[in-house]
Amino acid sequence: MKKYLCGVDIGGTSIKFGLFDMEFNLLERWSIPTNLSSNGSLILKEIAASIVEKTNIDEIEGIGFGVPGPVFRDIIQKCVNLGWDRVDLKKEFLNIIHRDDLIIHVSNDANTAAFGEYKHGIAKGHTNVAMMTIGTGIGGGIISHGHIVDGVNGVAGEIGHMIVDHKYGFSCNCGKKGCLETVASATGIIRLAHYKLEHTKTPSALRNYPNGFSAKKVIDYAKEGDSLALEVVREVADYIAVMFANMTYTINPDIFVIGGGVSLAGDFLIKLIEERYYPYVLPFVTKTNIKISVLGNDAGIYGAASLVKS
Amino acid sequence: MKKYLCGVDIGGTSIKFGLFDMEFNLLERWSIPTNLSSNGSLILKEIAASIVEKTNIDEIEGIGFGVPGPVFRDIIQKCVNLGWDRVDLKKEFLNIIHRDDLIIHVSNDANTAAFGEYKHGIAKGHTNVAMMTIGTGIGGGIISHGHIVDGVNGVAGEIGHMIVDHKYGFSCNCGKKGCLETVASATGIIRLAHYKLEHTKTPSALRNYPNGFSAKKVIDYAKEGDSLALEVVREVADYIAVMFANMTYTINPDIFVIGGGVSLAGDFLIKLIEERYYPYVLPFVTKTNIKISVLGNDAGIYGAASLVKS
Repeated sequence: MKKYLCGVDIGGTSIKFGLFDMEFNLLERWSIPTNLSSNGSLILKEIAASIVEKTNIDEIEGIGFGVPGPVFRDIIQKCVNLGWDRVDLKKEFLNIIHRDDLIIHVSNDANTAAFGEYKHGIAKGHTNVAMMTIGTGIGGGIISHGHIVDGVNGVAGEIGHMIVDHKYGFSCNCGKKGCLETVASATGIIRLAHYKLEHTKTPSALRNYPNGFSAKKVIDYAKEGDSLALEVVREVADYIAVMFANMTYTINPDIFVIGGGVSLAGDFLIKLIEERYYPYVLPFVTKTNIKISVLGNDAGIYGAASLVKS
Repeated sequence: MKKYLCGVDIGGTSIKFGLFDMEFNLLERWSIPTNLSSNGSLILKEIAASIVEKTNIDEIEGIGFGVPGPVFRDIIQKCVNLGWDRVDLKKEFLNIIHRDDLIIHVSNDANTAAFGEYKHGIAKGHTNVAMMTIGTGIGGGIISHGHIVDGVNGVAGEIGHMIVDHKYGFSCNCGKKGCLETVASATGIIRLAHYKLEHTKTPSALRNYPNGFSAKKVIDYAKEGDSLALEVVREVADYIAVMFANMTYTINPDIFVIGGGVSLAGDFLIKLIEERYYPYVLPFVTKTNIKISVLGNDAGIYGAASLVKS
């Protein structure tokens, strides 16, 4: 008798696991460090060992995986951070764990986070959902009519690389310039703040940190009214608003969900984004939900487990 | 015994009808002028009368409608060109035609055109499809996993209003500036050409038309190598490429289909768009289908009929 579902969220630093009952109550949550040695070839073995150790594997109906790279029809195309090229995870994992009756599904990690929020979080009950995760970089996931949209190259929702900046032209890791990620990720926020500190004389509390500061610090000072910090966060909100407008004219989602570390800025950030968003989409759109993720770091394991049974 | 399906494509000038057998063979195609008097209140009556006159209504399984405005869950939100506000077309049409067993569905006209190409045209067999129709304005339609994406306000696919121009700032009919439609529609092509004629001294055959010229003329001269005309069409291709890139980072469609009058520019236009598109999406995307519509003006009636039975 199958009693459980398992969600696995594979990141470049750690691998998160969630054990759920069939009603998606989270029974247990644990994590292991990601073993990047030997081009990540030990990762699946260690995941299997951890699941066997922590659970009664015979009672698990299926395991869903979120991975940090593009996935097309359950085949991983590449995960640079793990050292993986094309991987048929289902086949390899079943070869390791020897349980042919296990249901295995895999999707991109940002897509599984979006799916988690759609099935069990803030986006529950909506039809079309767009999620943006703002951390070191910017990821995204799209749900349309209940399906994760992966896209023909598995890059649907890679909104961090939408070109929105026509002013600074910072270089992105992807090789292009002007990507959203260069100006609106945590790294981008710090970059914009340094740029403004260097190119203006505006007084700012940020000038008191010669050894650098975090994106959180910029946001905290912006909340307190520091004019340079506020200018930075307003500009970030504007870039996000442009991108949300582009997505609105594409799939017109019921809800945009913002997750990742920068989402801790909360209502302050939402309000600034809304102020900029509506001028880009009126008169067509007068009310779009823009909300902060409620599942936070657990969105990935919820979404991964939901791939098994949705 | 039901033997037929009917597709109706309602435009601001004429209403196109297609009668199909159950295998979607187009048996008959006709049209009537759109009666805009009395705020378009006679349109549905005239459509019903025309169908009753041309067909044996009792043998029709259903009628699908494409309308020039946003639709959400079969409810028309507004059709400015017809004089319509919110319309429950299904209810009103059945009240006129008194056939409660008729299946009625309605969608936005650009969405039905996209659906037509997806079910019966160049996009057949693809999973995610984005269509752009370039005529006087620019419309679009998105198909994801077999569903038309309408979006919560019915504006999914309204790609003509994606903001892509940060240089000219021409005003759009929607009230915003910088919309794709202002620079890449037939009207936009003429506008860009006039702008360049006025602001440069570049010699051009277009200077021989003091009373104006069509978008087709600009494209034809561009094909012949007229440098000003070519510059215009290259710029148009670049705007379209930016928009395609934005859509790629959202839903990563297998195929972009280009329809409408300007699509008659054919491979010449496709090639210019491809040249600009790849630099915006590499390294993530190396092969996207960008194709001209094959159903042309019939895409709407095919798609509308397909709403009934798909």
